[in-house]
Amino acid sequence: MNKSIFYHAGCPVCVSAEQEILSLMNANAVEVIHLGEDQAKVGVAEQAGVQSVPALVTPSGQVLHINFGASISDLKA
Amino acid sequence: MNKSIFYHAGCPVCVSAEQEILSLMNANAVEVIHLGEDQAKVGVAEQAGVQSVPALVTPSGQVLHINFGASISDLKA
Repeated sequence: MNKSIFYHAGCPVCVSAEQEILSLMNANAVEVIHLGEDQAKVGVAEQAGVQSVPALVTPSGQVLHINFGASISDLKA
Repeated sequence: MNKSIFYHAGCPVCVSAEQEILSLMNANAVEVIHLGEDQAKVGVAEQAGVQSVPALVTPSGQVLHINFGASISDLKA
């Protein structure tokens, strides 16, 4: 099975959501990407449909926006 | 372990999120409540901090608002 990808930006809302998601799901099935530290992935996330972080992109390609930490446009350098 | 509670209202956004969440988590660890059909639970959800549906209330009491289907205030009879 492909992994889900959890995108975040280090904000308090993101960290809190990440802890919950990783505790509820199989943590090995989730790849965590910090868009603040990995700017090259911002475009990838945006193309996947991510509009804000934290967000979880599932193996089926659906985007689950979880609470609201920051807009993807605010993460562009 | 206590169960997580997934609140929804039957909207397309809700159903889509429910399918993703149940496929990613252990489905046995999630109780699903349809607030449109179970109006008595609207107040319970609101007290738990649910502001919109779909939302997942985790065993630790955190509320993860997932995408946006409907505001909790729109579900009050």
